[in-house]
Amino acid sequence: MTAADVIACCRDLAACSEEPGMTTRRFLTAPMRHVHARLTGLMEAVGMEVHVDAAGNLRGLYPATRADAWRFIIGSHLDTVRQAGAFDGVLGVVLGVALVGRLGGRRLPVAIEVIGFSEEEGVRFGIPFIGSRALAGTLDAAVLEHRDDDGCSIREAIVAYGLDPAALNQAIMEHRTGGYLEFHIEQGPVLDTLQLPLGVVTAIVGQSRFLVTFVGEANHAGTTPMTSRRDALAGAAEWIARVEHEARRIPELVATVGRVDVLPGAANVIPGECRATLDLRHRVNSARKASARLLTDAARQIGIERGLTVYVEPQLDQDAVHMDSSLRTRLEAAVLRCGYPVHIMTSGAGHDAMVLANELSTAMLFLRTPRGVSHHPDETVREEDVEAELKVGGALLDDLEQASS
Amino acid sequence: MTAADVIACCRDLAACSEEPGMTTRRFLTAPMRHVHARLTGLMEAVGMEVHVDAAGNLRGLYPATRADAWRFIIGSHLDTVRQAGAFDGVLGVVLGVALVGRLGGRRLPVAIEVIGFSEEEGVRFGIPFIGSRALAGTLDAAVLEHRDDDGCSIREAIVAYGLDPAALNQAIMEHRTGGYLEFHIEQGPVLDTLQLPLGVVTAIVGQSRFLVTFVGEANHAGTTPMTSRRDALAGAAEWIARVEHEARRIPELVATVGRVDVLPGAANVIPGECRATLDLRHRVNSARKASARLLTDAARQIGIERGLTVYVEPQLDQDAVHMDSSLRTRLEAAVLRCGYPVHIMTSGAGHDAMVLANELSTAMLFLRTPRGVSHHPDETVREEDVEAELKVGGALLDDLEQASS
Repeated sequence: MTAADVIACCRDLAACSEEPGMTTRRFLTAPMRHVHARLTGLMEAVGMEVHVDAAGNLRGLYPATRADAWRFIIGSHLDTVRQAGAFDGVLGVVLGVALVGRLGGRRLPVAIEVIGFSEEEGVRFGIPFIGSRALAGTLDAAVLEHRDDDGCSIREAIVAYGLDPAALNQAIMEHRTGGYLEFHIEQGPVLDTLQLPLGVVTAIVGQSRFLVTFVGEANHAGTTPMTSRRDALAGAAEWIARVEHEARRIPELVATVGRVDVLPGAANVIPGECRATLDLRHRVNSARKASARLLTDAARQIGIERGLTVYVEPQLDQDAVHMDSSLRTRLEAAVLRCGYPVHIMTSGAGHDAMVLANELSTAMLFLRTPRGVSHHPDETVREEDVEAELKVGGALLDDLEQASS
Repeated sequence: MTAADVIACCRDLAACSEEPGMTTRRFLTAPMRHVHARLTGLMEAVGMEVHVDAAGNLRGLYPATRADAWRFIIGSHLDTVRQAGAFDGVLGVVLGVALVGRLGGRRLPVAIEVIGFSEEEGVRFGIPFIGSRALAGTLDAAVLEHRDDDGCSIREAIVAYGLDPAALNQAIMEHRTGGYLEFHIEQGPVLDTLQLPLGVVTAIVGQSRFLVTFVGEANHAGTTPMTSRRDALAGAAEWIARVEHEARRIPELVATVGRVDVLPGAANVIPGECRATLDLRHRVNSARKASARLLTDAARQIGIERGLTVYVEPQLDQDAVHMDSSLRTRLEAAVLRCGYPVHIMTSGAGHDAMVLANELSTAMLFLRTPRGVSHHPDETVREEDVEAELKVGGALLDDLEQASS
């Protein structure tokens, strides 16, 4: 497959959707069968043995020269957000198949497994990484009882797809598996701004999330003088401005207030309560935690100054996940050998690589995302960048072949 | 009736509600029948002729000594907001009845009409002042077709109450009507802060309302660096802080951002759009309009600086309504004669007096609202302040009696 073939394949698979005219493909919904069928065809054509495991992951094995060889996984996810683009996730799977295809039937001393994970986005059940957690063996049974908006549980969705939830243990990665590589679009504007095709990921940033609630006093917008107000929204606005100001000042930090709920929320009533989310991400855990303290303390201080009560509820505290330095070094060398500049970067988003990095040597190679547009029908990739990924992937496999010989 | 009787009566009527355990009484809903029945009894007991007009206003006429005498109205509204207090509106009606009662059957050379307006708050149909607009003859027929959340139109609500919408013209005030007085709780903290029982209203402030929309670009909260963002909420927050800052700086201005809607409104997505309401009130129309320009221009300027598109939609532009200076002077004299300090103030809220001031000499006397709490079950009044209103009302009637003799 050429880079153009890879892109055409991704665009073709984007038509497998729950909603006509757009791409929405959640965990084990009907259109996933079409995706599995088409990719199975492609995998078998290049000599892979294919099955769908009990977690709904599509798994194609390209056997090694020897039965006792170690195994190297190339993968990403096949599910999408609502109204998605054509490349988030699926590109990494198609690239894996294309790389095996480029071997032209030649076996390596390492087995290659290409995996299309069933679930990464968390859209259907509010639980992300179902596929990769099953592979890592960290999907506990209680999770299976979570239900989607239609009342269907994960367990029932697995059964409805014709799979056996009791066989989930068989989805766990083979014990000789030694590495994982994920190709993925950056989903941000950094590479595009720098005019670079590729980025080698060093870490997936840590993330903290808080719900910050300002409570003042709802009152009549006409009869309450400015000096008599305890306006919860005015306090929250001062804090949101402060969050932005500090995040611009602290290197590498991203801080987002993405959701705000104002009560009672009428044009003629002074807001009595304002709830706001705070999402903080940083590569360095200590820097993230210091920023969290700074910004939540700022909310409390604003509350004191304005006579507002401020509640800070931690909702998520997830440390950064680092890629394996040895596999990353091999990947960087492959990038250089192919004639591309090495750009080292962090991922601000979670990926299946985050789950697998705890279990085995993991690396990620980002691809430029034009204008940073992702999770949107306008998401696209450049053919030359896809070709760069294919070249670097090929060079890495050459390296693994030599190292395993 | 003593002041204590007036308060007890209001608390009693607060039990006439659509919702058990709280006070919610919208236009011509079932509990309004109980209110009408109880007040009719009180009115008839003091010698008034009572009927409910086609707009649902309860009207009690205390005839004058002569058939050709002019008529003076004392009134306020009988409907409430949701989860209301016991005094907003109804107190002004009960005080009117109590004042007639204090005459002990003695007729004056001026007829006194006590009116309990059917609708002022605008809760059921989103249209305020239905009662007083019918009295003023400014309720046009198209308004009758507005429907509530249950699909019932104003016309149908009138019919369901047993009244005839075709007779609405008969609700218009009698042509010899010469004045209107409204007693009302302040619904703000000013009198309470100044430790004054009464306030003479000079004007009901003008009001402007805008919907201000900031449009940026929704993007991933993790992968988009701070420098690449066009965060609609961050821009709105800067503007909300500016609104508060300017409103504190401009004498007498009140400015409120009461409602904010953030899209898409997810913790991990940079806000792409933020819609905010702006409510501005000032006694002086030119000052209000200048403030409106200043604050909407500030939104546009913030948009330019941040690469956001800003839309400003005017939604309301209502000039200040001034009370009649001659009737107000009589009211001030009555306050002084009764031994109370005269405090002149504006009303930041709309009242039936606003509608009637365009048709006849109108005055309003505010009553202290402890802690400024209104539109809330905790709304209350002090007995001594109710007694002050009764004394001043009596003194004003004495004055009108002498002037008409």
